Amino acid sequence: MNPVEIIRKKREGKSLEIEEIDFFLHSFIEEKIPDYQVAAFLMAAFINGLNKWETSALTSAMLFSGEVIDLSDIPGVKVDKHSTGGVGDKTSLILAPIVAAAGVNVPMISGRSLGHTGGTLDKLESIPGFRTDLNLKKYKEVIKKCGAVLIGQTKEIAPADKLLYALRDVTATVESIPLITASIMSKKLAEGIDGLVLDVKTGSGAFMKKLKDANELAQSLINTAISFNKKVIAFITDMNQPLGNYIGNWFEVYESIKVLQGEKVDDLLEVTLNLSGAMICLGGKAKSVKEGIEISQDMISSGKAFNKFLEIVKLQGGDIEFIKHPHKYPKSKIHERIYASNSGYLSNVDCYEIGMASLELGAGRMMKTDIIDLKAGIIFYPKIGTKIKKGDLIADVFTDKKNRVDGVRERIVSSISIAKEKPKVPKLIKSIIS
Amino acid sequence: MNPVEIIRKKREGKSLEIEEIDFFLHSFIEEKIPDYQVAAFLMAAFINGLNKWETSALTSAMLFSGEVIDLSDIPGVKVDKHSTGGVGDKTSLILAPIVAAAGVNVPMISGRSLGHTGGTLDKLESIPGFRTDLNLKKYKEVIKKCGAVLIGQTKEIAPADKLLYALRDVTATVESIPLITASIMSKKLAEGIDGLVLDVKTGSGAFMKKLKDANELAQSLINTAISFNKKVIAFITDMNQPLGNYIGNWFEVYESIKVLQGEKVDDLLEVTLNLSGAMICLGGKAKSVKEGIEISQDMISSGKAFNKFLEIVKLQGGDIEFIKHPHKYPKSKIHERIYASNSGYLSNVDCYEIGMASLELGAGRMMKTDIIDLKAGIIFYPKIGTKIKKGDLIADVFTDKKNRVDGVRERIVSSISIAKEKPKVPKLIKSIIS
Repeated sequence: MNPVEIIRKKREGKSLEIEEIDFFLHSFIEEKIPDYQVAAFLMAAFINGLNKWETSALTSAMLFSGEVIDLSDIPGVKVDKHSTGGVGDKTSLILAPIVAAAGVNVPMISGRSLGHTGGTLDKLESIPGFRTDLNLKKYKEVIKKCGAVLIGQTKEIAPADKLLYALRDVTATVESIPLITASIMSKKLAEGIDGLVLDVKTGSGAFMKKLKDANELAQSLINTAISFNKKVIAFITDMNQPLGNYIGNWFEVYESIKVLQGEKVDDLLEVTLNLSGAMICLGGKAKSVKEGIEISQDMISSGKAFNKFLEIVKLQGGDIEFIKHPHKYPKSKIHERIYASNSGYLSNVDCYEIGMASLELGAGRMMKTDIIDLKAGIIFYPKIGTKIKKGDLIADVFTDKKNRVDGVRERIVSSISIAKEKPKVPKLIKSIIS
Repeated sequence: MNPVEIIRKKREGKSLEIEEIDFFLHSFIEEKIPDYQVAAFLMAAFINGLNKWETSALTSAMLFSGEVIDLSDIPGVKVDKHSTGGVGDKTSLILAPIVAAAGVNVPMISGRSLGHTGGTLDKLESIPGFRTDLNLKKYKEVIKKCGAVLIGQTKEIAPADKLLYALRDVTATVESIPLITASIMSKKLAEGIDGLVLDVKTGSGAFMKKLKDANELAQSLINTAISFNKKVIAFITDMNQPLGNYIGNWFEVYESIKVLQGEKVDDLLEVTLNLSGAMICLGGKAKSVKEGIEISQDMISSGKAFNKFLEIVKLQGGDIEFIKHPHKYPKSKIHERIYASNSGYLSNVDCYEIGMASLELGAGRMMKTDIIDLKAGIIFYPKIGTKIKKGDLIADVFTDKKNRVDGVRERIVSSISIAKEKPKVPKLIKSIIS
């Protein structure tokens, strides 16, 4: 096979054979074809697309570039959740203990914060001592003991994805549904899962701003999961405003603890319970998502979910003292309050800007090498449709970076719109696809 | 400026600013941006196209990556011709002396044979002693003395084109009209010309198989020439069969000598005279192409063109003994005759296959490093529409490679179609655009 002919075929919008994608990817990994040919291929694939068979073939080539974890010696069904990322999205922290408490294994390999979105690993690492860099042996041990484990990508998992992503990042070929699909699914399929619940977010704070794109990505992820014989349910959920009220790493752990202890944070709870309900259903412990939601609620109200959380934190080296007594956590030097400058209804939030404000405070990364201030963040109070009076508290802002406060205030104030008329409130769960 | 943003813009089909193209190309030449970013850009430009302003900007950046030869100290107008290449296309060898004899300077930088097409440099080098590797000083000396010079690309001329072409070649981004335009025009504009005549060939032996593509390329070349304030006339000419009868390096020099000495090779003469007529017209020595054609005919019949050819050959180190007595030229070891296997009219020629047959005999290159047998080639007799009787001589084949003879006979025989009905003869000069 000739790499140039494969590039040409994709350039002309033709479909590639599985063997051609396999050959191309393997040659790339083995450094037998140069970066510039892969870059030309990625751009052709970006513009002309990949069909579902090509996407599965690419996923497969990336998946088998590394190790596929074998969890068959652990009894029970293994189900993970993947979210496309958002602002204040801490559902993983809440649902992993809920689902594990309900008897379904949750092997979870997560990512880090980048740009305006948060990352589960950084949030977990805000718990002093918590280790997300477990090796695969330890990974299996933890899940065997408590039914859940949350780690970062290891070098054994889909190394092709890392190489390919690095190239996509510098060749403007990131935002492609088939390429995103292969990237997500190659890592998720390596976890050793039987089923996967997808949370594809849409709105101003999401990667997919448009519902159409979110639907397309969900369908592409589902097609690929099915082609690998995995059970799958996808949710399209709203990300036009932060999920819950807390944004920032420790802040999101804090809000998760509150929810696990029974506090009603409406939007956060609704999304989390739907996802955990679906996971329990795929795990065979409920007949429907609805029944899974009821079981999830029981896990919270009985205290089993919170106890499971303590168990996970302990097994992964975290100090449960801070989980039990979150007020002991170190505080930011600066606490700034942001008030409403006029009255009306909160009609719109540029959620991307809220995420970027949190990043500016130190809670996120612009570049992979940036160091995060784990205690920094924002508490953002109103929800779209909330009645607001001039002078009401909109947000509390916490940081050690004094020089960022004015910029962040400006950013938050100009990211919200207050209207005279009560606006239409965006639907939180937009659709469920299975 | 950010290379990734420039790639993204082109990926989205947006138009780039001149400054962006300039920055991108210059950064590439200075090795400030890597090959893989250029490869992604080339693929985006290939698929989404470049408009005429972008194409001119790219041409300009490539042109000014090297030296632009200043011929202003040489009196008179300088006009060159560029052909997109074909089989048996030896017009440059005939028109350069005609036009120079008519008092218009012809500074010509040509290319080599590659694939099924011939190259002027290889043809000239079949004349023993002929040097095509003159430096720019010598280039100017020759044109000053005799009004014409024919050399190969020097390292000073548009070095960006060489770099970019090498990358296009391995990333399936060659056959793009704007990229081809920038490649051709950056080299032609560096010659120091005032005007340019274009011969865009179309048909089975041409780069542009379809008339539509040939028209599009012609228009793109014209737009770019005009944006650099150059006078330009383009011809779309037929390349569905070899031009003239001789194919191969020395063979084409031989046929050129015959035409310069007054022999009537109808199709070859018609194309050559149109091109030389246009060059004389752009050079200000004729009021119209028609008048330029008449002057060209005078230059042949008076012997001035042939004498000019001798002068050029001599000045570039060639042995005019072989020009005066071509029968003295070394002969191939093998001479094979190919006869018609049935009767009718020649209705079609796969001219690409004839070019490839010539290559197989040793007259061409599959790879840049291949060594050419300058005396090898084909004399192909019939023209589309010619009445043929079974057993008529179709072609004479000359080579030193015995093992290629059977394959070449097979190739030539299967490349021609003989029909009962007299076919429509393709129009030789399809259009003139100025």
